[in-house]
Amino acid sequence: MNRSTLIAEIQRKKSFLCVGLDSELRKIPAHLHSFPDPVLEFNRQIIDATRDLCVAYKPNLAFYEALGPAGWLTFQKTVEYIGSEHLIIADAKRGDIGNTGAMYAEAFFNQLGCDAVTVAPYMGEDSVKPFLTYPDKWAIVLALTSNPGSADFQQTIQADTEGPLFEKVLRRVQTWGTPDNLMFVVGATHPEAFARVRALAPEHFLLVPGVGAQGGDLAAICQYGMNADCGLLVNASRSILFASGGEDFATAARNEAMRMQGDMADILAVSARML
Amino acid sequence: MNRSTLIAEIQRKKSFLCVGLDSELRKIPAHLHSFPDPVLEFNRQIIDATRDLCVAYKPNLAFYEALGPAGWLTFQKTVEYIGSEHLIIADAKRGDIGNTGAMYAEAFFNQLGCDAVTVAPYMGEDSVKPFLTYPDKWAIVLALTSNPGSADFQQTIQADTEGPLFEKVLRRVQTWGTPDNLMFVVGATHPEAFARVRALAPEHFLLVPGVGAQGGDLAAICQYGMNADCGLLVNASRSILFASGGEDFATAARNEAMRMQGDMADILAVSARML
Repeated sequence: MNRSTLIAEIQRKKSFLCVGLDSELRKIPAHLHSFPDPVLEFNRQIIDATRDLCVAYKPNLAFYEALGPAGWLTFQKTVEYIGSEHLIIADAKRGDIGNTGAMYAEAFFNQLGCDAVTVAPYMGEDSVKPFLTYPDKWAIVLALTSNPGSADFQQTIQADTEGPLFEKVLRRVQTWGTPDNLMFVVGATHPEAFARVRALAPEHFLLVPGVGAQGGDLAAICQYGMNADCGLLVNASRSILFASGGEDFATAARNEAMRMQGDMADILAVSARML
Repeated sequence: MNRSTLIAEIQRKKSFLCVGLDSELRKIPAHLHSFPDPVLEFNRQIIDATRDLCVAYKPNLAFYEALGPAGWLTFQKTVEYIGSEHLIIADAKRGDIGNTGAMYAEAFFNQLGCDAVTVAPYMGEDSVKPFLTYPDKWAIVLALTSNPGSADFQQTIQADTEGPLFEKVLRRVQTWGTPDNLMFVVGATHPEAFARVRALAPEHFLLVPGVGAQGGDLAAICQYGMNADCGLLVNASRSILFASGGEDFATAARNEAMRMQGDMADILAVSARML
């Protein structure tokens, strides 16, 4: 999916919601465990319940790899079930030397048909560039993540710029791609950083985890992080998937997704009036 | 495999060679393509040809993921075929928030039976710690990698320490584990850095890629990187796997592995005399 289609979908659905398919087998409702592939059935029902409310899905590979080779097949079938009307983000946080990175890009873009892959920047240019060579596909590079460990290295101050490492990542990685094939991960748990991120990367889409279970504030993020194209994909995983642990899980997931989409529609309306 | 067994195996085999199973389907000899699983057959013959010469195998996940769900099964069967007498390193370069990291650890340690996983440090403490909670299992954290992109962030100078980022990674990550469950990746293409790495991490094993196809010099690495327990696992992938592209590939691989093991035996003998 390319940038203009993504922006059009955000406007059409009045939503910049990304549903994270962190579908942990142990957490899915008991009545699904009799299905041949319980995780796939769970995903199908979550997808059916949220399709019209979100513009992206983000399955996290860890939860599929933990199931062995069968989990990889579940991942593939989930991607197929989502189809082509949503941006499909493989949350894989890959990153390896050039020839290896190219194999990962082939795996996620060609083999599995994903639109985007999350990529760790630590190994530098030749680890990121293989994800930037496919038309209408995206690398989403970690800048400032939502977890406590983001303080360990991402926020350490660099001698040359006197700014934190994640700002160097934002600056340097931008020179390898364009707003049409490159996004950044910026966690919702750092609302104060969004103004700075936007100063450094005004046009790029930002993928924002950490709303919901991790406690990030949607309004604060949008105030500082939105641009004229919206420029945000806000992810919620556990707060939607596990809104109920019972047989009504899909309805509960829809209600939570609808609550978030409602908030997003309001924010988009205010934002449109201000432009 | 625990540390004392690893050290004993290095002494017994007079080798600290790790064979990287970067078994790219397009590169394996033509006559293997008639097998039901050509990559598995290639790996079996490589493993049989090198078992007595190396102490570790390091399959790189990218080359298996690129084959889709079937590749994941090939990875699993390769790990089973290696068995329990070698350290099995899943070269996966994973790294994600705590609950997700825990799923990756479960995937590689419990589901797949690997001994070690390579982990990217960018997301900090809660992304590394899940790999440090399994007895006799290892996290191998990227410090200074062998690729050109290692200059982009790993070598940038930090304001507080006036040293490069990878030194901060070495210092901080050490506080999360011990030399019994934590190793670091230090690329052979930076021989000048090994003295500094050893000053900061005297006891930890170092996994050293970049000898062979990437051009690193074994003698220089050992001069500065070896400690009283050897403390090095030197990896070669392409230079062994693809020593010949013909029907004699396994013999050619054995010859190249034997050449490296011979050099290592000489270095270990000199090192033993000096202690």
